[in-house]
Amino acid sequence: MTYCVGMVLDRGLVFMSDTRTNAGLDNISTFRKITLWEEPGDRVLTLLSSGNLATTQSVVSLLNERSKSPEDRTPTLLTAPSMFQAANMVADTLREVVARYRQGGLTAETQKFSATMILGGQIGESPPRLFLIYPEGNFIEAGRDTPFFQIGETKYGRPILVRAYDPALSFEQAMKLLIVSFDSTLKANLSVGAPFDYHLYSRDSLKLGPTGRIGVDDPYFNEISLAWGNALKAALDSLPDFERVPDP
Amino acid sequence: MTYCVGMVLDRGLVFMSDTRTNAGLDNISTFRKITLWEEPGDRVLTLLSSGNLATTQSVVSLLNERSKSPEDRTPTLLTAPSMFQAANMVADTLREVVARYRQGGLTAETQKFSATMILGGQIGESPPRLFLIYPEGNFIEAGRDTPFFQIGETKYGRPILVRAYDPALSFEQAMKLLIVSFDSTLKANLSVGAPFDYHLYSRDSLKLGPTGRIGVDDPYFNEISLAWGNALKAALDSLPDFERVPDP
Repeated sequence: MTYCVGMVLDRGLVFMSDTRTNAGLDNISTFRKITLWEEPGDRVLTLLSSGNLATTQSVVSLLNERSKSPEDRTPTLLTAPSMFQAANMVADTLREVVARYRQGGLTAETQKFSATMILGGQIGESPPRLFLIYPEGNFIEAGRDTPFFQIGETKYGRPILVRAYDPALSFEQAMKLLIVSFDSTLKANLSVGAPFDYHLYSRDSLKLGPTGRIGVDDPYFNEISLAWGNALKAALDSLPDFERVPDP
Repeated sequence: MTYCVGMVLDRGLVFMSDTRTNAGLDNISTFRKITLWEEPGDRVLTLLSSGNLATTQSVVSLLNERSKSPEDRTPTLLTAPSMFQAANMVADTLREVVARYRQGGLTAETQKFSATMILGGQIGESPPRLFLIYPEGNFIEAGRDTPFFQIGETKYGRPILVRAYDPALSFEQAMKLLIVSFDSTLKANLSVGAPFDYHLYSRDSLKLGPTGRIGVDDPYFNEISLAWGNALKAALDSLPDFERVPDP
């Protein structure tokens, strides 16, 4: 499993992903699930991947190879005229890889090769855009009503995002919100694991923003995890108790 | 889908269930998913059901019928000597019903007839016990490390239970905690719906405790739902922001 979130803010785009992959409970590894492309002054793209690791790595490798030999195939991800075209390109590549692995596979096994991706970024003078790409090669775009996408193990970390997301969040506040959401997921699902990778893209900068990795032993992560547990209990205490229990 | 929780407290046992059943998105109904049995001074049993409604109703009907004609089959749920024996009886009945519906069914369809149940209660001088019963007819018991069970759509409402559960909670506090957990689930999954049924069993009382139903228009439910959203945001605000974002 995996947990990744991509979020549209007034300030720009925020991305976070975990790094755990597992093939069975006793075969776990750390892999980067966030891929960045940059042509300074022209475009920045961020891709988050969930699902079969062989599939998602193939997709990224194909996208990279094709960007390096634009004479074979144009446009590439680095020359696509719009984010919509870039999303189309990632979606087509994903569908191509999934279809190839599924050929001749056992029916029951084919689900395994599936993957879902989040692509966000900005090209030229168009505004930043964020897409959720399905293994079938179709995709949807974030809008005012659905300003963030989650992929992988999305349920545990969703309630706090639904309640606390605000487009006016600063990067500092958005990172805090995401860390709380990731911490809730981590506590409930063994197949989601730290460290967490992030990328903060500033609207209209057209260059990579701050990126980094937050480990389990990160002091800020531990402070938030502990303080959030206490703050939740305090929040619950602040609400009125259910008064309809008669005395025994 | 469904959402039910059974919880062991120092004070006794707490049960809550939603009431929505659906066969497709446009065919929804309200059904009671909590069943109570009482022999005052001797035993109180509470059963929560999730899964196929035909299966769970059959199980309850069979248990009831057999209780009424103990000459045919002994012991019945109302004469079982221990909670363990009662859990065995419910589990056997569940397995029997699931197996019957599956006979001759299409393989792909059989999963549909599945159900999962929570049984809690107290018999005689033994302490209260709580069991999670699987469709295969086996079951596990709550203990100090796992003092509550959830069935159905369990993920959205789990983080707050994990963080705020405490065996010393009063019934009033436990109801508040459960309402928050149910509200988070309700907000995320259309197939979980109010009203919510509850039963609060006082340890060693050996009689039914307060029961009731909380609707969407219940003033307390609405107060908690609104106040919880605000309290969550305030809790998040109270944590330190992520300070590692460099100035642009």
